[in-house]
Amino acid sequence: LGLVGGSLAAASRKSGLFESVHGYDRKPAVAREAMQRGLVDAVGDDLDAELAAADVVALAAPVDRIIELIPRVGAAVRAGTLVTDVGSTKRKIVAAMNELPDGVCAVGGHPMAGSTAAGPGAARPGLFQGARWALVATRGSDDDAMEKLRMMVRSFGAEPVVMEAEAHDRIVALTSHVPALMAVGLVENAAQRSSSDPLFAGPGFWSATRLAESNVEMMEQILLDNSDCVSAELARLERTLGELRAALAGDRQDLRARLSRAREARGALLGL
Amino acid sequence: LGLVGGSLAAASRKSGLFESVHGYDRKPAVAREAMQRGLVDAVGDDLDAELAAADVVALAAPVDRIIELIPRVGAAVRAGTLVTDVGSTKRKIVAAMNELPDGVCAVGGHPMAGSTAAGPGAARPGLFQGARWALVATRGSDDDAMEKLRMMVRSFGAEPVVMEAEAHDRIVALTSHVPALMAVGLVENAAQRSSSDPLFAGPGFWSATRLAESNVEMMEQILLDNSDCVSAELARLERTLGELRAALAGDRQDLRARLSRAREARGALLGL
Repeated sequence: LGLVGGSLAAASRKSGLFESVHGYDRKPAVAREAMQRGLVDAVGDDLDAELAAADVVALAAPVDRIIELIPRVGAAVRAGTLVTDVGSTKRKIVAAMNELPDGVCAVGGHPMAGSTAAGPGAARPGLFQGARWALVATRGSDDDAMEKLRMMVRSFGAEPVVMEAEAHDRIVALTSHVPALMAVGLVENAAQRSSSDPLFAGPGFWSATRLAESNVEMMEQILLDNSDCVSAELARLERTLGELRAALAGDRQDLRARLSRAREARGALLGL
Repeated sequence: LGLVGGSLAAASRKSGLFESVHGYDRKPAVAREAMQRGLVDAVGDDLDAELAAADVVALAAPVDRIIELIPRVGAAVRAGTLVTDVGSTKRKIVAAMNELPDGVCAVGGHPMAGSTAAGPGAARPGLFQGARWALVATRGSDDDAMEKLRMMVRSFGAEPVVMEAEAHDRIVALTSHVPALMAVGLVENAAQRSSSDPLFAGPGFWSATRLAESNVEMMEQILLDNSDCVSAELARLERTLGELRAALAGDRQDLRARLSRAREARGALLGL
């Protein structure tokens, strides 16, 4: 019931799609806060009982924890229950979902939304507005399960995008995990080069390094979990930066062409 | 009278420090728009006459254009006129200012503020609020000139930081020019890897690549003008990224320590 789970609960309440939205958190204080803030209709302290009563289960936790929870969820839920998650990588989670008993309709999920703020205090029903949301089919996904989740995602103001787990992990390495490492690298270099004064930097630097504010444990786990894709994409980026450095030293036309193409490409990638 | 010049004029008007704020732009349409938007009290079409009448002259143009203008400014202004600029690099500008006739009080300047929007339509008096603003002494800077400019900068809500031209160009290579090239590299790789659909990316990617939206001509000129510092800082960053890649492959403790240190360092660099 932190930032993403709490927001998912709040968005679910607001959607009107559910009779009631129950929450569970390992930390009772977090569950209490989520309840006080109105993110959920109720919180339970017996996870298995909550699971058994649910029509839809959404797991919002670090990737390792989601993987641990999946067999327990499989043992507790009724046949036909839709199980999904919001984990940041998808290969291992979908592999675990593929081991669920027949009759459990699992669909991997990942909303491309977040914040460097954390906890139920930062949760809000509008967090997913305008976000893309990956849906990854598993062995137990049928058309009905996919359609239900698609409808939920749309009701949150987000856009469902069906993809394979492998494609998901490759693209988020490039769009999320490598940018986080770049932010870390930039901050490291700035910290080494700058005196103790506030850094001489403008809004561009703070924007470029925002991802260095991410939760350390969660980011470490995501990077290690997806390390093959992240390494490959980071090596690609290092090569690109080397090319840009070469253009800077010698080829003014190449430099200008690359700046110009990147400016156009960014608009196209944004869907403008 | 574009984004920065227009904002400087508007902030100057608002400061109450000046009897009147006159603007000049090579493009008459831009000057007219600045006038219509109330950024200036008046616009002139005879640059030399404007310069001869001014107590304070602020040059807001691409670096090459500022360097071209400096001798003309030196020939036109009265003795005792304070001349400053807002150019993104400082070594060449300060070198040109050092050639000004005796009696012209030139101080190099650079506000760390901006936007990917351009033109007088994007200008606003609050643009510099909270920004750091480099002041670089030249041969003609006396205490009075430095103090006047410091006062102006403070009246705009910005914080003056006195530094040498060399130190300025090194630090902005790291905090502004390298982040722009990183944004270009990230967008290039994303454009190569993604289908024609909008990119599967969240707010972290758009924040990390915002600087790829910068004006191409201006950015090209800045990068080439400061290419020695930019190359050196970019090479450093490539090494740091290589180290992060190595940590990812083998040393979980190093990876976590680096993520954790970067998170703390960013707050310290921000002056939090």
